[in-house]
Amino acid sequence: MTEIKNAACVGGGVIGGAWVARFALAGIDVKIFDPHPEAERIIGEVMANAERAYAMLTMAPLPPKGKLTFCKSIEETVKDADWIQESVPERLELKRGVITQIDAAARPDALIGSSTSGLLPSDLQAEMKHPERMFVAHPYNPVYLLPLVELVGGKKTSKATIERAMQGVEQIGMKGVVIAKEIEAFVGDRLLEALWREALWLIQDDICDTETLDNVMRYSFGMRWAQMGLFETYRIAGGEAGMRHFLAQFGPCLKWPWTKFTDVVDLDDALVEKIGAQSDAQAAGRSIRELERIRDENLVGIMHALKSGNGGEGWGAGKLLADFEAKLWANAKKPEADLGDVKPLHILDTKVSAAWVDYNGHMTEHRYLQVFGDTSDGLLRLIGVDLEYVRDGHSYYTVETHIRNLGEAKLGDALYSTCQLLSSDEKRLHLFSTIYNAETKEAVATAEQMMLHVDSKAGKSVAAPAKVLDKLKAITEAHAGLPTPEGVGRFVGQKR
Amino acid sequence: MTEIKNAACVGGGVIGGAWVARFALAGIDVKIFDPHPEAERIIGEVMANAERAYAMLTMAPLPPKGKLTFCKSIEETVKDADWIQESVPERLELKRGVITQIDAAARPDALIGSSTSGLLPSDLQAEMKHPERMFVAHPYNPVYLLPLVELVGGKKTSKATIERAMQGVEQIGMKGVVIAKEIEAFVGDRLLEALWREALWLIQDDICDTETLDNVMRYSFGMRWAQMGLFETYRIAGGEAGMRHFLAQFGPCLKWPWTKFTDVVDLDDALVEKIGAQSDAQAAGRSIRELERIRDENLVGIMHALKSGNGGEGWGAGKLLADFEAKLWANAKKPEADLGDVKPLHILDTKVSAAWVDYNGHMTEHRYLQVFGDTSDGLLRLIGVDLEYVRDGHSYYTVETHIRNLGEAKLGDALYSTCQLLSSDEKRLHLFSTIYNAETKEAVATAEQMMLHVDSKAGKSVAAPAKVLDKLKAITEAHAGLPTPEGVGRFVGQKR
Repeated sequence: MTEIKNAACVGGGVIGGAWVARFALAGIDVKIFDPHPEAERIIGEVMANAERAYAMLTMAPLPPKGKLTFCKSIEETVKDADWIQESVPERLELKRGVITQIDAAARPDALIGSSTSGLLPSDLQAEMKHPERMFVAHPYNPVYLLPLVELVGGKKTSKATIERAMQGVEQIGMKGVVIAKEIEAFVGDRLLEALWREALWLIQDDICDTETLDNVMRYSFGMRWAQMGLFETYRIAGGEAGMRHFLAQFGPCLKWPWTKFTDVVDLDDALVEKIGAQSDAQAAGRSIRELERIRDENLVGIMHALKSGNGGEGWGAGKLLADFEAKLWANAKKPEADLGDVKPLHILDTKVSAAWVDYNGHMTEHRYLQVFGDTSDGLLRLIGVDLEYVRDGHSYYTVETHIRNLGEAKLGDALYSTCQLLSSDEKRLHLFSTIYNAETKEAVATAEQMMLHVDSKAGKSVAAPAKVLDKLKAITEAHAGLPTPEGVGRFVGQKR
Repeated sequence: MTEIKNAACVGGGVIGGAWVARFALAGIDVKIFDPHPEAERIIGEVMANAERAYAMLTMAPLPPKGKLTFCKSIEETVKDADWIQESVPERLELKRGVITQIDAAARPDALIGSSTSGLLPSDLQAEMKHPERMFVAHPYNPVYLLPLVELVGGKKTSKATIERAMQGVEQIGMKGVVIAKEIEAFVGDRLLEALWREALWLIQDDICDTETLDNVMRYSFGMRWAQMGLFETYRIAGGEAGMRHFLAQFGPCLKWPWTKFTDVVDLDDALVEKIGAQSDAQAAGRSIRELERIRDENLVGIMHALKSGNGGEGWGAGKLLADFEAKLWANAKKPEADLGDVKPLHILDTKVSAAWVDYNGHMTEHRYLQVFGDTSDGLLRLIGVDLEYVRDGHSYYTVETHIRNLGEAKLGDALYSTCQLLSSDEKRLHLFSTIYNAETKEAVATAEQMMLHVDSKAGKSVAAPAKVLDKLKAITEAHAGLPTPEGVGRFVGQKR
C-alpha cells in the first residue's frame, strides 16, 4: 500500500484548488504552482468552502491539516511529491508541455495525475520519459464534496500505476473508478453531454423552460441516480425477471421517435439569451454563493442519508463516507492513553453540523443527546464493546438519562466531550458526560446516565463478561479519585 | 380549488396500482377496473410497499385510508369519479379505446388523466366527446415515492383542466409540472433516453461495465441532480458570471468528438447477454425485493435530508414533503379539544422512520429526545408559542431533562405521545411526557422536563406574557387533578 505523504498541485483554480483542499484536509502537505497573480486568494476561497463542507460532512476527527506551500517553479513544486496533480487549462499542447516538465523534475516513482475532463492520456503522456506513471484522475465539481474520480490510463500507463492511484484517492476520502479503455470525455462527461444536448433542444423548441426541466429531474430520476445509477435502477424496473426482461421490454423504444434529438443544437445568441433569462428567473435573485451553500448542505444531507442506508450498513457515497470516517477514527488520538489517569476521559471531538441546527443556527435539543450517545459509545469501545461485540448479541442499553443544558452550541462550533465513570458493577455502568465548547472550554451540557448490560436477543440484563469488566473496573478505580461532578444525583427542578 | 373525493383507476399493474395507493393514502376512495385475473393481488402488493414507504416518509398523521372497490366494468368504475386515471398497456389503439369508453361513462366535469410515458394526448383524445378534460399525467417509478407528474395537454385540452390537474396532484402529495408543448416521450423520458442510448454504447464498446457506469453516476452528478437538476447546477459552475458565461465556455465542446455516440446501438442477443451478466454481478445476489427496499429507504432518506435543506426551509422534493405534511397536520385531529380535560394531552402521532434506527432496526437513543422535543413543541403551540412567536424573539428553552427508557421502539412502529403539566409559573414550565406504542398502548419512554421562558436575543429568562400564561394556567389547573406520574422527581440510579 502506497501512502501519499507529500502532494503537489500544478494549476490552481476551482479544480486544482479543490485537490489542494482534499489533500490538506486528509493531513497531506501540498506544494502548489500557479502563475496566476491571484492564485493564493482563489485557492484560499476554495479551501474555506471545503473546510466548511468537511466540518459538516465528517463527524470523525480530521488529522492536523497539511501545510500549503506556494512555489515559484514546477521543479520546486514537484520534486519531493508522491502524487502530482495537473489542473491547468484544457488545451492539449499546454497540458502536454506541463506534464512533460513535471515528468522531468519529479521522482521516477511519483504518480502524475491529470484533471483533464476530455483529453486522452495517451496524447498527454506522449513526450514523457516515465510515461508509465501518468494517468487521468478526473474529479467532479464540487470536488471537495463529490467523491468520484475517473481513473483512465493511456497506452503507456502501467497497471501498477492505476492500482496505486486507487489507493491514493481512497486515502483522501474519494472514490476511484477505473475506466477500461481511453476515449474522449471518458464515461461521466459522455453521459452528461448526451443529456445536455437533449436538454438544449427541449429549451430551444420551447417544450419547457429551464426550471421545469430541472424540476422534472430533481423530483424524479435525479433521486434514483443519486443512489443507484442507471442500470441497477432499471434492473429493479424489470421486476423479478431482471435486466434481460427490462431490455426486451424497453429496447424497441430506442428506435421510436424519442431518439430524434441527436443532432447538435445551434447555440446561437438567441438561444444563449433565452437560457440565460430563464435561468435568472429560476434563481429568483439567489446569488451563486447562496446557491453553492444550499447545494453543499444538500449534498452533505444526501450523503448522511445514504450513510444510514442499507439497514445502517451505508450505501454508495454514504458507505464510502462511513468507511472514510472509520479510518479517521482509527488514526485519531486514542483516549486509551488516558485510561489510567485520574481525570475524565476525553472521548469525542466533533462540530455542530448544518443538519443539527434549527433556523436560528442553534443546535437542536436532541442533538445534545446524540453527542452524549456517541460519547457513551466511545467509552464502550474502550472497554471492548464495539460493533462486533454488539453483533454477537450483547450490548449496553441506556435506561436512564439526566441532561442539564447549560449553554448554547451554534452551527460550526467545535465541541468535545469527556466521560467520568461514577460507579460500575457486573451489570450496571453509571457515568457522567460533559460537552464542552472547544474554544471557550465552557461546559455546554452534562448528562448523567445509567446503562445496563443486556443479552439483546433475550431482551434481558445479564452480567458482562470478565474481559469487559476488567477494563471497566480499571477505569472506575482510576476515576474513584475524582470529585463527584456538580449535578450528579440531581432531579428535575431541584433547587441548587 | 377542486377537491378530489372519489378517484377511479382503469388498469392496475405497477403504475396503476401505485396511483391507487397515492389516492387511498391521501384519504380518497378509489374504484378500480382491471380484467387481469391477479389484479387484486398485484395492487395489494404495490399498496403494501406504498404503505411501508409512506410510514417512513411522512411524519405527519395520514387521514383514514380511502376505500378500495374492485369493479366489473369501466362504466361502474368511473361514473362517480372526480379523477379517472388510465394506466393500461402502452398501445395507442388500446389506450384510445379505453379513454373513449371512460369519456362516455364519466361525469362531463370529471378529469381524465393518462399514465402514458410517450403517446401524444392529442392522439388519445381524438375520439372523445369531452376531450377538453383529458390530459397526460405521467408519473415515475416508484410512483408511491417519487413525486413527479408530467402534465401534458393535447390540442383539445382546456387550460382550466391543466390547472385543476395541478391542484389534484398537489392534494395527493405529488409535484405537477406542466409541459408546454406535446411531444413524444415529453421531457423526462427524452432526457432518460438520451443518457440511456449513450450508456448502451459505453457498455457495447467495453469502455466500462454496468457497475462502473452506475458508480460514475451515483458518486457524482446523480447527487447534484437529486437536488438542483441540470441548469441550476450549471449556473453555479458558471460562477458569478452565471449561465451565459457557462454556455460561452462549454458550448464549443458540443461539437467535439464527445458527441459521436448519437446513433442507436444494435441491442442484439450478445449485447443483452453482456448487460444481463454484468448486472447480475453488480447485484451480488441481492433480490429485486431487497434492492427495492434499499432504494425506497434511500429515497426516503434523501427526501428527509432535502426537507432540512435551505436552512431548514426545505428544498426541492423535501420542501414539497414539508408542505404536504403541513397540510396533513392542519387536517389532523386537534389536541385543543382536550384542553379542559382532566387527562394528559394527546400531542403527537408519529412512526419510527428508517433514518431513526440503528442496524438492528431499533430507534436510536437521541430520537426519543427528538420525539419528546416535538411533544413539548406541540404543547407550546397550544399555548400560543409558535414559529411566529419564536421569530419575534421569545421562546421556551429546555434547561433540564430526565428520561427513562422503558421499552424498545422499532422501525415502522406507530407511536404517540402525551404531555402532563406538573406545574408552571411566570417563567417556568414543568412537564412530564410519555411516548407510547400505539398498538400495545405500553409506555416506551418518559421525560420529565423543566423549561424556561426566555428573551432569546438578550439570552436571559423573562416572564411570559399574559396571553401565554392564561392558556398555560388553564391547562395547569386542569392537570392539577391528575395523579403525579410514576418517575417524577426521580434521580438517575434511584432505587424504585
